[in-house]
Amino acid sequence: MAPLPNLSRLRFTDDLGLGTRSGPGRSVNKDGTFNVRRLGVPAFRSYELYHNLITMGGFRFLGLLFLGFLITNALFAAVYAGIGMDQFVRTGGNSPLDRGLDAFFFSAQTLTTVGYGHISPNSHLVSAVAALESLLGLLSFALATGLLYGRFSRPHAQMCFSRNGLVAPFRGSTAFMFRFVNRRSNQLIEVEATVVFTFLDVESGSRRFVTLALERSKINLFPTSWTVVHPIDEASPLFGLKDEDLRKAQAEFIVLIKAFDDTFAQSIYQRTSYTADEVLWGLRFKPMSTLRADGTMEMDVDLVGATEEAVEP
Amino acid sequence: MAPLPNLSRLRFTDDLGLGTRSGPGRSVNKDGTFNVRRLGVPAFRSYELYHNLITMGGFRFLGLLFLGFLITNALFAAVYAGIGMDQFVRTGGNSPLDRGLDAFFFSAQTLTTVGYGHISPNSHLVSAVAALESLLGLLSFALATGLLYGRFSRPHAQMCFSRNGLVAPFRGSTAFMFRFVNRRSNQLIEVEATVVFTFLDVESGSRRFVTLALERSKINLFPTSWTVVHPIDEASPLFGLKDEDLRKAQAEFIVLIKAFDDTFAQSIYQRTSYTADEVLWGLRFKPMSTLRADGTMEMDVDLVGATEEAVEP
Amino acid sequence: MAPLPNLSRLRFTDDLGLGTRSGPGRSVNKDGTFNVRRLGVPAFRSYELYHNLITMGGFRFLGLLFLGFLITNALFAAVYAGIGMDQFVRTGGNSPLDRGLDAFFFSAQTLTTVGYGHISPNSHLVSAVAALESLLGLLSFALATGLLYGRFSRPHAQMCFSRNGLVAPFRGSTAFMFRFVNRRSNQLIEVEATVVFTFLDVESGSRRFVTLALERSKINLFPTSWTVVHPIDEASPLFGLKDEDLRKAQAEFIVLIKAFDDTFAQSIYQRTSYTADEVLWGLRFKPMSTLRADGTMEMDVDLVGATEEAVEP
Amino acid sequence: MAPLPNLSRLRFTDDLGLGTRSGPGRSVNKDGTFNVRRLGVPAFRSYELYHNLITMGGFRFLGLLFLGFLITNALFAAVYAGIGMDQFVRTGGNSPLDRGLDAFFFSAQTLTTVGYGHISPNSHLVSAVAALESLLGLLSFALATGLLYGRFSRPHAQMCFSRNGLVAPFRGSTAFMFRFVNRRSNQLIEVEATVVFTFLDVESGSRRFVTLALERSKINLFPTSWTVVHPIDEASPLFGLKDEDLRKAQAEFIVLIKAFDDTFAQSIYQRTSYTADEVLWGLRFKPMSTLRADGTMEMDVDLVGATEEAVEP
Repeated sequence: MAPLPNLSRLRFTDDLGLGTRSGPGRSVNKDGTFNVRRLGVPAFRSYELYHNLITMGGFRFLGLLFLGFLITNALFAAVYAGIGMDQFVRTGGNSPLDRGLDAFFFSAQTLTTVGYGHISPNSHLVSAVAALESLLGLLSFALATGLLYGRFSRPHAQMCFSRNGLVAPFRGSTAFMFRFVNRRSNQLIEVEATVVFTFLDVESGSRRFVTLALERSKINLFPTSWTVVHPIDEASPLFGLKDEDLRKAQAEFIVLIKAFDDTFAQSIYQRTSYTADEVLWGLRFKPMSTLRADGTMEMDVDLVGATEEAVEP
Repeated sequence: MAPLPNLSRLRFTDDLGLGTRSGPGRSVNKDGTFNVRRLGVPAFRSYELYHNLITMGGFRFLGLLFLGFLITNALFAAVYAGIGMDQFVRTGGNSPLDRGLDAFFFSAQTLTTVGYGHISPNSHLVSAVAALESLLGLLSFALATGLLYGRFSRPHAQMCFSRNGLVAPFRGSTAFMFRFVNRRSNQLIEVEATVVFTFLDVESGSRRFVTLALERSKINLFPTSWTVVHPIDEASPLFGLKDEDLRKAQAEFIVLIKAFDDTFAQSIYQRTSYTADEVLWGLRFKPMSTLRADGTMEMDVDLVGATEEAVEP
Repeated sequence: MAPLPNLSRLRFTDDLGLGTRSGPGRSVNKDGTFNVRRLGVPAFRSYELYHNLITMGGFRFLGLLFLGFLITNALFAAVYAGIGMDQFVRTGGNSPLDRGLDAFFFSAQTLTTVGYGHISPNSHLVSAVAALESLLGLLSFALATGLLYGRFSRPHAQMCFSRNGLVAPFRGSTAFMFRFVNRRSNQLIEVEATVVFTFLDVESGSRRFVTLALERSKINLFPTSWTVVHPIDEASPLFGLKDEDLRKAQAEFIVLIKAFDDTFAQSIYQRTSYTADEVLWGLRFKPMSTLRADGTMEMDVDLVGATEEAVEP
Repeated sequence: MAPLPNLSRLRFTDDLGLGTRSGPGRSVNKDGTFNVRRLGVPAFRSYELYHNLITMGGFRFLGLLFLGFLITNALFAAVYAGIGMDQFVRTGGNSPLDRGLDAFFFSAQTLTTVGYGHISPNSHLVSAVAALESLLGLLSFALATGLLYGRFSRPHAQMCFSRNGLVAPFRGSTAFMFRFVNRRSNQLIEVEATVVFTFLDVESGSRRFVTLALERSKINLFPTSWTVVHPIDEASPLFGLKDEDLRKAQAEFIVLIKAFDDTFAQSIYQRTSYTADEVLWGLRFKPMSTLRADGTMEMDVDLVGATEEAVEP
């Protein structure tokens, strides 16, 4: 059996930048990242630090901020204690613990510029260190302000794709299709879809990439869901293929979505992929929307991947 | 009578992403939102919170900030009171009300980092809670800074559309037209208009969408107003139709405007629609501008929807 | 004499959005603004306030900030004085002036959250007002942070145009030309120019607009200067015209420049215009650059408008 | 020997904006800047200051902030000392040094709004200066917040190019090629390359610019590396040329890369160039990626410029 019999008549597109030596695993992961590990990227350059602080999870980010606050205060407390707690105006106890904690809390009150004054410098050296610490505090919180804004304002993954692609009846023939919705309240407009079919060419041993023709590749508005459809007609590389052919050829459907976020005026790109194992045959998508009596549509976002038995036409 | 007689020769455009099952109500509301309710959108995910905080009204936003300030202080006041107000240096009274309010105001002075010091911690536990609170305060105001900037810098609705679309005499025939101005002082340039005519196809029971040909679909500069004109010639789906035909077919003119905001370097999209009920026949727009003696033009933005009797040519 | 004899064979472009009823004055001012006054624009809507605060001059902006600081403190001082200065812990004098100034400076120390504590609240009512004021202070400075960032990061006018357009010899014929440079250190790339020639059509009494063909309408890089050239060949609307013809027809050359600012990743648009009075005949631009011995080019930005006698070819 | 024999049949592209009078040095430096010195650019205009503060190195920026902090405090300390340190509530010594340092540290505590209160104003004049200083402090740190955010969020140079361009065997003939990777973790997509070949035309004495045809000029995804290839076929201006011809003609390959940064939603432009001396003949690039047993690719970014002997086909 010729695994993908009708490919000789196809013009192969560029390799998308994914290279042609990909192995058995998928090229693009479900979340749109790539199956590539990069060595030699300098982790402690400021732009990598910024990138990591912007993209890490929210709790981890807050944890790092808190940890940084504790460590900075501990370091300055050590400096103050080294200078001597007798160079402060203070009323607390004189045990080592009392002195250490007073140094720590004086540092915290300086770093945050709360400065109650019940502990205050009584020597020029302490005043100098405290001036430096309050400057550092203000700059740190300036940095935190920028990071918090950067975290919120950067484009987030928003599209929710159906877990499976389907090969289902479509206008008297069949079609490959998947569905997605916007999970957020932002308005997305001018949404464009590109689907690239990739498979392992047995003869050459390298991956081939073919862009699939879509019934429609762009929609102007996106208030509900969009079912992207590639009709499997005679011009399609999928024509005549069966489920098992796709598996043997380690086929993968790479999905590239581009949109414009109307609320924040920025372009949004998102990717996902469907491997042969994630393509179901003979099912179709259930409707997600119902029309209510008052004329409004109601759409249940959680139904994006819901399927039902496809009745043969 | 065939309600929309000459549509058989039309190529229907894509459905704009609005679906074909729309009911009797309008598809696009006057303010450009959609007649769709979305279920299953997680309201308490951070990106939804951010989106809501950015897009809610100004007074509601300030009210929420104030409420958050009160609640945070009340919570910390409860913690301080639980620890015991005897662990503070303070000179206030000792009634429960005095102690509670002192706890509350110490919290406020800590959260805002004003820290007068007339109430100050007298135990390590209080100092630790206060350090935590001042850290929380700084991060909260960092967040508020970002939110305030995000609220101001995001693109705002700016175009002001005429309340009604008109079908009026135009170059010996008639045309569908509407008018809009930029209500803000920002310079808008490269303004593009798309008008999609949608109606309920009685035979199939589903909505049809046709993009209308415009006399001009883009202008480079936009200092005054723009009257967008669709000439109703033989190629128009509106050719030969009357007011009542549009109403019967639940017709709607969906308007998509794209522009570039020169002042803030961002793309602006805005939408509106005119239902058959909002289209007036036999009127035309009054001029909005008058030429002054010194050679400058004067335009009254409030006249954008002003009409007058159209004199037959 | 037919004022603009060869215009009958021209296809008129759209009117740029400037309308066709413009009077004797220029359509576009030297700084790119329009000769249009807009009535009915709501000046106190938040977006207009933001726009004004972002675009006003730097000294005026700082002055407004300072004035707001004074007024806010005066208002809160009045509240504190109304409550009674005996409800404060303070050591200052008791003359009305002393009390008033202490109220004012307590307010300033609260609004800026400096909170020395030498004046501090001695009643719950004062504490409550002070808590409110410190909250207001933090939000105000959050706003100021956003405004300062918005002022700096928005695209600024950067192109410096030659004061005059020239009609000068060019490749055996003549051409209309002007020159401009980037006055800033930012890298501008993908620079595009559009030149629209507009004149008053005597027969119809309305303005006509024609886009001029340019020798080159886009450059990829813009490290030095760019002389934009419209060759006056037989296809040009300027063919055969003289200086006085342009003046009679109230001609104006409207210039639209688009570029991408590489440093801040944003699109830049700038406009200017040359009226017939600002077009010089028979001069050409002096070179702005000299090649130094070490192979680098040296360009004097101030020479952008420098001209010299054009030698006839 | 005709130095660049087959150029007569070429259509020369525009000069990229680099002018045609370039001398012996390179037009574009390795880091993408231009070999042009600009005179007359006003260095102290606010936009130049902002540009410089955004683009200078991190340590220099922090150093300037620290210096500004010291100088501001010294100036205010001089004012306070001029008013007289007897107008403060303070407990420190009375030597000139003590008084000067107390003035300095009171200033620091006011500028950073830490305000311990152990030194506090005891006259209205001091209070007024201190109010002004705390206002200045808040505005300065608002500015620093914006600058820090602007520094981080602006697009950074990210592409790492191979040090050398190669002329290597390619599909039975030869090709000019270079390679680059994304050094950062950001996802770059829709990457486009333009290569312009420039040389000194001996006859006219001026530089010529020709855009080279590329085997592929755009890739959709960029997870690994991209080797940009110009096949040297009969249509190529390099056809039949040798290493020494390029040197004689002072040839230079100017590389323009455009991409979209998916993480921060902004367009990225980067430039570099290869002079004839930086083009190696007869070598080819070593593979950068290896396929691991688990199906993931591993790419070593440091190998971007690694070459090996090219085996003749």
